[in-house]
Amino acid sequence: MRRIDWRQLDAAQRARALLRPAQQAGAETATAVARLIEDVRARGDAALRELTARFDGAELDDLVVSAAEFASASAALSPALRDAIDEAAARIEHFHQAGMAAPYAVDTAPGVRCERMLRPIRRVGLYVPAGSAPLPSTALMLALPARLAGCRDVVLCTPPRADGSADPAVLHAASRCGVRRVFKLGGVQAIAAMAFGTDAVPACDKLFGPGNAYVTEAKRQVAMTDGGAAIDMPAGPSEVLVIADGGANPAFVAADLLSQAEHGADSQVLLLSDDDALLDAVALQLEQQLATLPRAEVARRALQASSLVRVDSLQEAFAISNDYAPEHLILALRDARAWLPQVQAAGSVFLGDWAPEALGDYCSGTNHVLPTGGAARFCGGLSVASFQVAITVQEVQPHGLAAIGPCAVELASAEGLDAHRLAVALRLQELAA
Amino acid sequence: MRRIDWRQLDAAQRARALLRPAQQAGAETATAVARLIEDVRARGDAALRELTARFDGAELDDLVVSAAEFASASAALSPALRDAIDEAAARIEHFHQAGMAAPYAVDTAPGVRCERMLRPIRRVGLYVPAGSAPLPSTALMLALPARLAGCRDVVLCTPPRADGSADPAVLHAASRCGVRRVFKLGGVQAIAAMAFGTDAVPACDKLFGPGNAYVTEAKRQVAMTDGGAAIDMPAGPSEVLVIADGGANPAFVAADLLSQAEHGADSQVLLLSDDDALLDAVALQLEQQLATLPRAEVARRALQASSLVRVDSLQEAFAISNDYAPEHLILALRDARAWLPQVQAAGSVFLGDWAPEALGDYCSGTNHVLPTGGAARFCGGLSVASFQVAITVQEVQPHGLAAIGPCAVELASAEGLDAHRLAVALRLQELAA
Ligand SMILES: [Zn+2]
Ligand SMILES: [Zn+2]
Repeated sequence: MRRIDWRQLDAAQRARALLRPAQQAGAETATAVARLIEDVRARGDAALRELTARFDGAELDDLVVSAAEFASASAALSPALRDAIDEAAARIEHFHQAGMAAPYAVDTAPGVRCERMLRPIRRVGLYVPAGSAPLPSTALMLALPARLAGCRDVVLCTPPRADGSADPAVLHAASRCGVRRVFKLGGVQAIAAMAFGTDAVPACDKLFGPGNAYVTEAKRQVAMTDGGAAIDMPAGPSEVLVIADGGANPAFVAADLLSQAEHGADSQVLLLSDDDALLDAVALQLEQQLATLPRAEVARRALQASSLVRVDSLQEAFAISNDYAPEHLILALRDARAWLPQVQAAGSVFLGDWAPEALGDYCSGTNHVLPTGGAARFCGGLSVASFQVAITVQEVQPHGLAAIGPCAVELASAEGLDAHRLAVALRLQELAA
Repeated sequence: MRRIDWRQLDAAQRARALLRPAQQAGAETATAVARLIEDVRARGDAALRELTARFDGAELDDLVVSAAEFASASAALSPALRDAIDEAAARIEHFHQAGMAAPYAVDTAPGVRCERMLRPIRRVGLYVPAGSAPLPSTALMLALPARLAGCRDVVLCTPPRADGSADPAVLHAASRCGVRRVFKLGGVQAIAAMAFGTDAVPACDKLFGPGNAYVTEAKRQVAMTDGGAAIDMPAGPSEVLVIADGGANPAFVAADLLSQAEHGADSQVLLLSDDDALLDAVALQLEQQLATLPRAEVARRALQASSLVRVDSLQEAFAISNDYAPEHLILALRDARAWLPQVQAAGSVFLGDWAPEALGDYCSGTNHVLPTGGAARFCGGLSVASFQVAITVQEVQPHGLAAIGPCAVELASAEGLDAHRLAVALRLQELAA
C-alpha cells in the first residue's frame, strides 16, 4: 500500500491520489456486451440456454427454479446458516420498514388539496451474482425492500452452478423474502432477459443489483435504450475510506481494509490518519493478516492501487472524504458520533471501533447496495423508495379554482401559453356564469 | 386527431396506438451535441461566448447576471406578475416542505443503532429554458426544492435574450428562491458548462430541468460520462392522458388537451372515454378552440400524432393508462377520487372537472418536472429528495457486536469472504479476552 503525506502534495498530486480507476467499460467490453444483449433480444430463450452453457457450464432444460428445488434448498442448508439468513433478514426488514415514506396530503389553498401517493413498481428484476461465491446477503438486500414496497411481481436471476442447480442459500434467502420466481441466469444474459423479456423471463420495469464489469455495462446499456428497463444506480468497484485517529486499534483497521480489498482486485481502499504511529502499525498488521488470508492474492492487488494517507488534521481528512464520496466510510475515532455532522457524502458510515464494514454487508440492518465511484455525491443506497414511484395528485373544488386560477392565468400569459390560460379562464367563466 | 375504437384493435394495433415517438436523439443530433460538449470542455468560457453568440444572438462580456441586473429585473415586472410568482412560490414551498423525508434512527439490536441522515447535494445546476418563451415557473419548480433541501451552492443557467439580458421574470423567480448565481447560457453549452465546469461556471454534482431535444441529449451524454454530473431524470416530450366519462364538460376536456398540445409539436395527447357522445363533443370543441389559439400551428401538429379512444369501460381506460404511464393524468370523472386507487403509474394526477393540468404547471403546489416517455413506470417527479443524498449510519457498541457479530461471521463464511469474517471475529475475540 502506497504511503502518502498529504501535506507534501500539490493540488494536481492530490487530485491524482484520489483518482479512481476508470469506471466505464472499454470499447471492447461494450461491444461484446451489446452483441450479447442483441442475441438475447433476437433469439430469446434459445440464446439464454446457449449462453448459460457457454459461460456457466450448465445445460438447462428449464431456466426457472422449481418448487421442488426451492424446498430442497432450505433443507440443504446448515441450521446455523439458515438462522443467520433469517436473523439478518429480520434486522434488514426492521431498518428498512422504519424509513418508509408515507403518503401525505396538504391543502395548499382552500379547496385545493395536493397529495403524494406511493405505488410499488409493477415488475422489478433482481440480480444476485455468484462470481467468487453466491451471495445470499444480496438476495436479502434486494428482495426485502421490494417486498416492503409492495412489489407483487418480483423476478430474481442468479447464475446456475455447473450441475445446473441454483445456490441453496440464495434460494432460501429469496424464499424468506417471498420471491418465488427465480431464474438460473447470470451475467449479461440475465440483464438482457429481464430488461427486454423472453418467452420464459418477463420484461421488468427496473433492474437492481450488483455485478461484475459485464453486468454493470449491460445495465448501463439497457438503461440507455428506448423501451429498456431503468436501473438502480451506476455501479463500480467497491471501496472503503477509513478515518482513524491515534487511539484506533491497528488490527481492527487493517482487518477492515482487508475485508474491503478482498471484494475484488479493483477494490479501492484508503486510510486517512493524523497519526504516524497508527499508520505504521496498520501497515504492519496488514502484512501479518494478509499472510493468513485465503483471498490474499485478490486483496494484494487491490492494495496496490490503495493508499495510507497522513493528513494534517482530522478536519482535513473529512474534507478529503467528502470530495471522494466513498461507498463505505469508517470513522475509527474517539467520539466518532461527534464527527458525524462533518460527513457530507458517503454511502454508509460506520461509527467507532466496534462497527466493522462487514456488519453493514450482512446484518446491521442497513442496505449493502450503495453508491460507488463517487456517486455518493448525488445518490444514496437502496431503500424501499427505490422500489416505489411517487405520484402527485391535485383535487380542486370550484372555490379552489376560483382562489388559485387567476395566478395560473397570469403566469400562463407571461409564458405565452395561451391554451393553458384558456383552460383555466374557461372554468373561471363557467363559475362566474 | 385520430379516432380509435379500442374494442376493434388486436394486440399489435393496441401496442402501436400507444407507441410514443422515438425518444432518443438521432445519430446526427447525438454527434452534434457531443461536438459542442467537447468544445466547451476544451475551450471553456471562450467556447461559451462563441456558442452564445451563434445560438442566442447575444454577444456577452460577462456570462453571469450582476446584482444590478437582478435588482432591475424585479422592478421591471408588473405587480400582477410579481405577485403571481410569489403566490405560486408559496404554495409550491408548502407542498414540497410537507413531503420532506426526515432522518430516523432505530436500534436493530441492543447496542446496534442504525440511522439514515440526509444531506443536501453539494452543488446543483438548474436549467431554465426559454425556447418559445422564458419559463419563470420552471425556475420555481427547480429552485424551491433545492432550497428546502438545504443546497447552499445553486447555479442556474437560462438563455439570454438577443440584447444580452436575462428574462426578468426568471430572475425574479430565482431571486425569490434565494438563487443568486445565474448564468446567461442556454442549450448544450449550458449543460456542458455545469457538468464539467469552466473558469466562469462551476462544475455541478447534479443537473436539473427540462429542455429541447438538444438539451435532453446533452444531459444524457454528460450523465453517461465518467466524472460528468448526474441528472434529474430521463426527459422527453410532454404528454397528457385524459380519462373522461359521459358527464365530463367537453369544453374543459378540449381545453386541457390543447394546453398539452401547445407545449410542442412533439407533445402527446390521449383522450379515453366510454362515451361516444363525449368524444364527438370534444372533437367539435377542439376545432372551435383551435381557431382562436395563437399557438394553433404547434397544437395542430401535436394533435396529428394524438388519439381520441373509445374504450369499453372505465376499468379498461385505467388499464391502458397504467401501461402508458402518462406524465399528466386527468380524471374528468364523476367521483374521480373513488377511481384514484386504480392509478398505478403516472407523473401527476388531476382529479375532477376543476383541476386543469395548467394548475399543476403553475401553482397548485405540486412539481411540474415530471417523468415522461413512460418513465412514470419507475420514477416520480422532482421533490426535495431529488436534491438530497440519504446516508446510512451504524453505531455499534461492544455488546452490540457481541449480539450480531456471530450472524455476520456465519454469512461471511458462507460467502467465502474470509477477511470479512476475520474483521468481526477479531473483535469478538478482543471482547472475550
Ligand atoms: Zn464488504
Ligand atoms: Zn402544461
